Amino acid sequence: MSERRILILQAATRVIARRGVRGLRVEELAEEAGVSTALIYYHFGGRAGLMRHTLEFISTRAERYTEPEACPESDPRGHLEEMLLLELQDAPDVVENSTAWGELRATSVFDPALREALRESTDEWIDYAAGLIRQAQEAGTVAESVVAGDAAERLTALVEGLSERWLSGSAALSRVRDVLRGALEVELGPAPSPGRRKGSKGRRAP
Amino acid sequence: MSERRILILQAATRVIARRGVRGLRVEELAEEAGVSTALIYYHFGGRAGLMRHTLEFISTRAERYTEPEACPESDPRGHLEEMLLLELQDAPDVVENSTAWGELRATSVFDPALREALRESTDEWIDYAAGLIRQAQEAGTVAESVVAGDAAERLTALVEGLSERWLSGSAALSRVRDVLRGALEVELGPAPSPGRRKGSKGRRAP
Repeated sequence: MSERRILILQAATRVIARRGVRGLRVEELAEEAGVSTALIYYHFGGRAGLMRHTLEFISTRAERYTEPEACPESDPRGHLEEMLLLELQDAPDVVENSTAWGELRATSVFDPALREALRESTDEWIDYAAGLIRQAQEAGTVAESVVAGDAAERLTALVEGLSERWLSGSAALSRVRDVLRGALEVELGPAPSPGRRKGSKGRRAP
Repeated sequence: MSERRILILQAATRVIARRGVRGLRVEELAEEAGVSTALIYYHFGGRAGLMRHTLEFISTRAERYTEPEACPESDPRGHLEEMLLLELQDAPDVVENSTAWGELRATSVFDPALREALRESTDEWIDYAAGLIRQAQEAGTVAESVVAGDAAERLTALVEGLSERWLSGSAALSRVRDVLRGALEVELGPAPSPGRRKGSKGRRAP
């Protein structure tokens, strides 16, 4: 992606996180990004295209900042747990991203324009989480009886619900993190000790 | 509550569910409700008061339309399950209520005015669900090992997350209902057969 495009999408995310999608005007965005409105229309062909690309940008950026330390190959369960918990943290990037994501979700209830892109991003997230659960089952850190797709759908929907509660001031950050940790145990079974994770880098001496 | 007040709050819920909180103007609401703007100001003292009362109205109405058939005293687990599943149904009242609730939640991310009322409503909902889980534990239909407050917080947050996914077109209604049913089993343990529910009205002949 060209630097200019990235600059515009970063600015769009900032504006959405600050005032919501419905407050977003192309003129204002141009000012925020320090570019002309013509350039925005040239790159994104209008407001709808801009919104779709911003959604994609937000999803991709979430993958980056939620990149866990645990390796998905050697510790898929640890990777999944970290990935979901990283969505709930008081870092400016995360707050901005989660706020913008929640706002795009809320807007789609009223405006069908973004629905397809939102469904695709949601499905990708669920599929990625479900894949990690399956890998963890192979590694022996999640019980075989867990239905990976169902657990992934519940855990990601719970993260969205908790994130909105946190961002709207209904629950403290430390509480929503605890609640999510509890959900991971309930859904995946008790976390194995590091030494019992097959292939874990953190393996302890017996 | 006076009939006039109810009329105004019903109209406010309709307008919010149709176009969002941010689209709501007192003039437009007056027209929708068939009353004067002066009457709205008289009853609610401005937009902030109106929003708070609408939130309360929505919460109370949700209690009514989610009034399950299962009796909370004789079958607390069945009552809880029905109550949560009733939030996910394609009935005009429920769609309107859930849309307005999600919108008030999303608005509170940007606007602190409603946060306190929203937190109170959320806490009441969680507490009611937690109380039912405790009663179910006493009745022997939920395992003692379940931490009622945590499970209630997760189940209600999951309902919010799933409701937004459904209303924004990311998941089919039948799917989110299945996902919630699965969560109830994971959180509360396998559902006991009707005959095994102590004091259940639905007791079958042995």
